[in-house]
Amino acid sequence: MSAPTAEPVVTTDIEQVVTELATAAKAASRALGGLTAAVKNEVLLAAAEAVEAQSDAILAANAADIARAEDGGTEASLIDRLRLTPQRVTGIADGLRQVAGLPDPIGVVVSGKTLPNGLELRQVRVPLGVVGMVYEARPNVTVDAFGIAFKSGNAVLLRGSSSAANSNAELVRVLREVLRDKGINANAVSLLPSEDRSSVTALIRARGLVDVVIPRGGAGLINAVVANATVPTIETGTGNCHVYVHALADLDIATRIILNSKTRRPSVCNTAETVLIDKAIAADAMPKITAALQAQGVVIHGDEPGMEPATEVDWAEEYLSLDIAMKVVDDLDAAVAHIDTYGTGHTEAIVTTDLAAAREFTSRVDAAAVMVNASTAFTDGEQFGFGAEIGISTQKLHARGPMGLPELTSTKWIVWGDGHIRPA
Amino acid sequence: MSAPTAEPVVTTDIEQVVTELATAAKAASRALGGLTAAVKNEVLLAAAEAVEAQSDAILAANAADIARAEDGGTEASLIDRLRLTPQRVTGIADGLRQVAGLPDPIGVVVSGKTLPNGLELRQVRVPLGVVGMVYEARPNVTVDAFGIAFKSGNAVLLRGSSSAANSNAELVRVLREVLRDKGINANAVSLLPSEDRSSVTALIRARGLVDVVIPRGGAGLINAVVANATVPTIETGTGNCHVYVHALADLDIATRIILNSKTRRPSVCNTAETVLIDKAIAADAMPKITAALQAQGVVIHGDEPGMEPATEVDWAEEYLSLDIAMKVVDDLDAAVAHIDTYGTGHTEAIVTTDLAAAREFTSRVDAAAVMVNASTAFTDGEQFGFGAEIGISTQKLHARGPMGLPELTSTKWIVWGDGHIRPA
Repeated sequence: MSAPTAEPVVTTDIEQVVTELATAAKAASRALGGLTAAVKNEVLLAAAEAVEAQSDAILAANAADIARAEDGGTEASLIDRLRLTPQRVTGIADGLRQVAGLPDPIGVVVSGKTLPNGLELRQVRVPLGVVGMVYEARPNVTVDAFGIAFKSGNAVLLRGSSSAANSNAELVRVLREVLRDKGINANAVSLLPSEDRSSVTALIRARGLVDVVIPRGGAGLINAVVANATVPTIETGTGNCHVYVHALADLDIATRIILNSKTRRPSVCNTAETVLIDKAIAADAMPKITAALQAQGVVIHGDEPGMEPATEVDWAEEYLSLDIAMKVVDDLDAAVAHIDTYGTGHTEAIVTTDLAAAREFTSRVDAAAVMVNASTAFTDGEQFGFGAEIGISTQKLHARGPMGLPELTSTKWIVWGDGHIRPA
Repeated sequence: MSAPTAEPVVTTDIEQVVTELATAAKAASRALGGLTAAVKNEVLLAAAEAVEAQSDAILAANAADIARAEDGGTEASLIDRLRLTPQRVTGIADGLRQVAGLPDPIGVVVSGKTLPNGLELRQVRVPLGVVGMVYEARPNVTVDAFGIAFKSGNAVLLRGSSSAANSNAELVRVLREVLRDKGINANAVSLLPSEDRSSVTALIRARGLVDVVIPRGGAGLINAVVANATVPTIETGTGNCHVYVHALADLDIATRIILNSKTRRPSVCNTAETVLIDKAIAADAMPKITAALQAQGVVIHGDEPGMEPATEVDWAEEYLSLDIAMKVVDDLDAAVAHIDTYGTGHTEAIVTTDLAAAREFTSRVDAAAVMVNASTAFTDGEQFGFGAEIGISTQKLHARGPMGLPELTSTKWIVWGDGHIRPA
């Protein structure tokens, strides 16, 4: 780059680069499944030390990303997500230490039996193999994803945001150095090019090399990945979550839960986006809930006087901001029908004192999590006690809801006999 | 059709037909999750009765399929798979009775806990929703798939072979009649058009309506489905299975297992397709195993004298016939490497008396089932004690190996609180 006579830029074949990295990851993954928990934990703790020890280099790389983002006029909230500080680097290292402390999912016998003919069957947890992660700005995800994938015996291919390219490259360099020092194939973690979407396309079509791709980001990214992938994918994080205030709700509880569900962190996927109020209680509930939301700066969209007029988009999409849609529904049937139409299968909540209503709502609503008299904000791997989370699945296959270490595994049947053959 | 003045044939928009059937199935599925086991079992037993009671109509429809196949010059083995007899109809009804006797997977609490803040969490099994099945000739699959899907609370869209169109239509008519009689939405089971592949394409792209598609058939069908689907799929049934005869194998046991793995039913996915013989034992093992296979009419493909010369295809593809490939390998490492290259992740077997070799092979080989001193033919839902099987998954996501009722379910987190909110 600093050569006085510039060479012509070689056009990189991104697809070939991704295929090579995926092939190398596959090869590395074969040895990872056999590592003991002791070895994996030692590596994770060493990685935590290395991240802290090389904090200066990591912060310098991050400063370059920040400078470029500022030059490009990136908005302040995105720059804040991108920014690393000494404290945040310590937080990244602590995340690795936390994963080291979690139980190893690999080798767990999920089920087993001895057949009448004496064959001994065990269904044992094994790694998936190679996990692809596609994610947006925050560089901490780079290390978090490595930690969770490595502890569950998987190699990981990371495709982060181009805005964090320098930070991610430096973090992955540190991680690979630690792996090499410990005698482990460094291709257990690789960073994919992020100049354009072509590396994503190559990743999601690397069938036979990559075992699963987990996209984390907005609905656009997730839909593009799912629609074009030949590799199995796990949809995450689109949460058009509802709170239904039932006819027999305690209004103090309803108000508290709606406020917490909306305002605790409006930009995350478990935030509430629509309030459904039962007609039977609307005259009391509407003014009380509206006033409480407005006092916190929440803009209410709906068909009632004094609200921002709502269109189809208000019911269908996430705001991820201090906005909420509000609708009066005839009864529990109508609430369930609305959720069936517009919900994304993330988290749905009912507020009620009536046991039958609670049972019916939890039975009929089709979502990863259904809350009774509790905030939608509880749908979270840490809150559920998983210790680490790779994302929240909104699909029904393989994993549903917050995904921890066991969700990054598959199983294998191991069968022991002494010459058993099957009768005709 | 018998009108004297022929109307112009209306071009059916297959995609629209499939979308309508899928929409109806989705609507029907919403009620199925709430059915008790008692109700579902009553329906399954009534369906068994109805299939037997309407045996004549079913056999007449089947006779039409058989006549058409014979006119078209279909080969005898396919016609045999297509043919129903009074005995086979009884077998179909007995299959439904067997599923009625299995435990209901729905509502099972998979895990649960009470958090320190008092929130009560339960992870409960729920249906997937709408299951699409794409399969080949045998009409019994039509009823089997309905039984398993219905018992696990799912609606099912069946896309059978065009050669069985009359048989399938009659069977589905009987099933829908039983559902209607029992007050259940008959769209819990529908048959898709089978004139051409367009209904398959529409099914695998009915994202949002269909929750999973399970292709059962040859590698061509499965690859086409997986490559073009936007709906999640479960790969089944491609089994390029190996038996590795280790240096410390008991040769009587090795011979018995190889014979059973190859000749018990050569056309099914768990049949062995390649024998790998350790160099250290080859001088004794090769003649013995070769003679035993040839005595059963098995043609051996390989690089040794007296064998049919093997090409890359012999290592890579399933014969599904009385053919087997045979190769001498240097050691366990080479056997594992060969399986890594050519295996399809179905079933792999080692024959050995050495404990360390058995442990290493089962740990390193990446497949749904790994056998030690046992025939590959044991990879089967009935053998594993599942009572019913919808296919054998060769993928790692969601389900791996034989799939029974629990593999057609997802889970839902149900969370009970009394006004819980999450701290900032």
